[in-house]
Amino acid sequence: MEEVEVAPPQAMEVRLKILFTSLCHTDVYLWEAKGQTPLFPCIFGPEAGGIVESVGEGVTDLKPGDHVLPVFTGECKECRHCESEESNMCDLLRINTDRGVMLNDGKSRFSINGQPIYHFVGTSTFSEYTVVHVGCVAKINPAAPLDKVCVLSCRISTGLGATLNVAKPKKGSTVAVFGLGAVGLAAAEGARISGASRIIGIDLNAKRFDQAKKFGVTEFVNPKDHDKPVQEVLAEMTNGGVDRSIECTGSINAMISAFECVHDGWGVAVLVGVPSKDDAFKTHPVNILNGRTIKGTFFGNYKPRSDLPSVVEKYMNKELELEKFITHEVSFSEINKAFEYMLRGDGLRCIIHMDA
Amino acid sequence: MEEVEVAPPQAMEVRLKILFTSLCHTDVYLWEAKGQTPLFPCIFGPEAGGIVESVGEGVTDLKPGDHVLPVFTGECKECRHCESEESNMCDLLRINTDRGVMLNDGKSRFSINGQPIYHFVGTSTFSEYTVVHVGCVAKINPAAPLDKVCVLSCRISTGLGATLNVAKPKKGSTVAVFGLGAVGLAAAEGARISGASRIIGIDLNAKRFDQAKKFGVTEFVNPKDHDKPVQEVLAEMTNGGVDRSIECTGSINAMISAFECVHDGWGVAVLVGVPSKDDAFKTHPVNILNGRTIKGTFFGNYKPRSDLPSVVEKYMNKELELEKFITHEVSFSEINKAFEYMLRGDGLRCIIHMDA
Repeated sequence: MEEVEVAPPQAMEVRLKILFTSLCHTDVYLWEAKGQTPLFPCIFGPEAGGIVESVGEGVTDLKPGDHVLPVFTGECKECRHCESEESNMCDLLRINTDRGVMLNDGKSRFSINGQPIYHFVGTSTFSEYTVVHVGCVAKINPAAPLDKVCVLSCRISTGLGATLNVAKPKKGSTVAVFGLGAVGLAAAEGARISGASRIIGIDLNAKRFDQAKKFGVTEFVNPKDHDKPVQEVLAEMTNGGVDRSIECTGSINAMISAFECVHDGWGVAVLVGVPSKDDAFKTHPVNILNGRTIKGTFFGNYKPRSDLPSVVEKYMNKELELEKFITHEVSFSEINKAFEYMLRGDGLRCIIHMDA
Repeated sequence: MEEVEVAPPQAMEVRLKILFTSLCHTDVYLWEAKGQTPLFPCIFGPEAGGIVESVGEGVTDLKPGDHVLPVFTGECKECRHCESEESNMCDLLRINTDRGVMLNDGKSRFSINGQPIYHFVGTSTFSEYTVVHVGCVAKINPAAPLDKVCVLSCRISTGLGATLNVAKPKKGSTVAVFGLGAVGLAAAEGARISGASRIIGIDLNAKRFDQAKKFGVTEFVNPKDHDKPVQEVLAEMTNGGVDRSIECTGSINAMISAFECVHDGWGVAVLVGVPSKDDAFKTHPVNILNGRTIKGTFFGNYKPRSDLPSVVEKYMNKELELEKFITHEVSFSEINKAFEYMLRGDGLRCIIHMDA
């Protein structure tokens, strides 16, 4: 814990007062700096809920007092991706784990005694105040409880959207979810909302199975319990394959299994988990030709500013259940406890109260 | 040329008088028996137009005199694939290159002096009369000229449907077509009908480029003319990648290029060409995760009985141009000429007149 100076927002920037933040596995992953080169020292934190404190020049659609979710990716509303109905991979603001500064002047807004402290994925929410680009801020219903909906600013939306926006299972269909962490359980929650009749969870950790039932998972497969590839196990369980699969682990073997376990003729596999940089996705092309589809997605295909407000409304009208994702709550001074829970694999989301 | 006895149709079978047939590369491929084990001696011919001569027990939706297209795959209308809106890979009647007999009794309807002559992919249209399963027969508008629409019973529909039903390019988009044979040109024709503004043809044979212009192809790339991978050439030509690509060669390298050349965020690659059995489709999974889609398709996702009549109507209302696919016409007694044209790579479709 240190006192950090937070400079005012410049053009197209917003200074936020963070009320609630949450620990994301991305923090631990990037803290260890596997495959990315973030600038250090920096302030972590991709997932949060807060209130606009002040706005910079040119910001017209946000004002002090607005309730918002900062997002690690963005939506400039002007590039070809933002103009496309099909993409949310904004050219200007898509996630950049190596950029620790603001776009306007290439500098940080955080400092200690004049020495810069860098930003992290454009959000840096482990701070009472932070400065973000206006394109990375979703304005939401002020009636929504920020201590709950803050979890929608990162992984929960990633998994939920992978199912609702990309896999789009029909009512009564069978959905396989690879990996029962927060992203996978959010994907399962999407399958439950879609009316899937069977939701099969696949995980190497048997401890996760009990918890997954709350998210609508109806059957479990632990690949360790079988001598044959898990795609064959799933094909036998489902008369030839599942209708949709969602891969949330990032393991290359799970990706290949997730693709090969979908039914020929109509099956769709959606890849969400982030692989290692030397991995190769490999399959026999006939598996594709036989009427299967593979799709990749990023942040659940949600455009942060345009789409997140409606996800918050899904929670408000009780279609989407968020409470079950929140397993711990701590004060900001106890943030190391949140890291301990995560590293132990204990629980899903730990909400950190910034004002406590 | 031999005299062959053609037995009457049994339950759920139809005997057709073939008026026009056409040579398909599948014939040559299977004649050489690469990777498949058809029963010999057999009567080849997957692509034709004809008239119902007689129907077997249980056939209610066809009667003598109906104009029809026999198809190498089928639609039983009862299996899960036929009931699915998304699949055309009928469990009962999907292409089976190894089966040379009828389903009803496991025997052939062709014979010479009592010795069986086997069927080929359920159609065997190089015969004045043939017997096919009712599920492999599309009843079409009797006003449609059979010497033109007969080409819709195989490869032209395969390429056309890959674009119209699977890739679904938007008006004004950029489409890459790999392989400018009949299937690829039909895919290009689909892109033209869809209103694509750029249609980029890719082929190793420069001779094919002139002909392709008639099918709406606006630009050409010969991979042999470049030192870098063709996906990089296409990305440079299109500011990051094409909107849709359709792979019609079956070459594994072309499949990988066709996938990697689509734009991140929204690009869709459709695989049509049939690969060798030992090929592996291999790509870095991040190429998928960055919002790209790969889809495989078979017979252009058309259900033969339900969908082919409407493709014939597209020709009748002049939306679809078929004449440009027909480069030669011969009488049945000259069928070897048709083989020569095809083996030389000369022309696209040679219509064989059975009654001439």
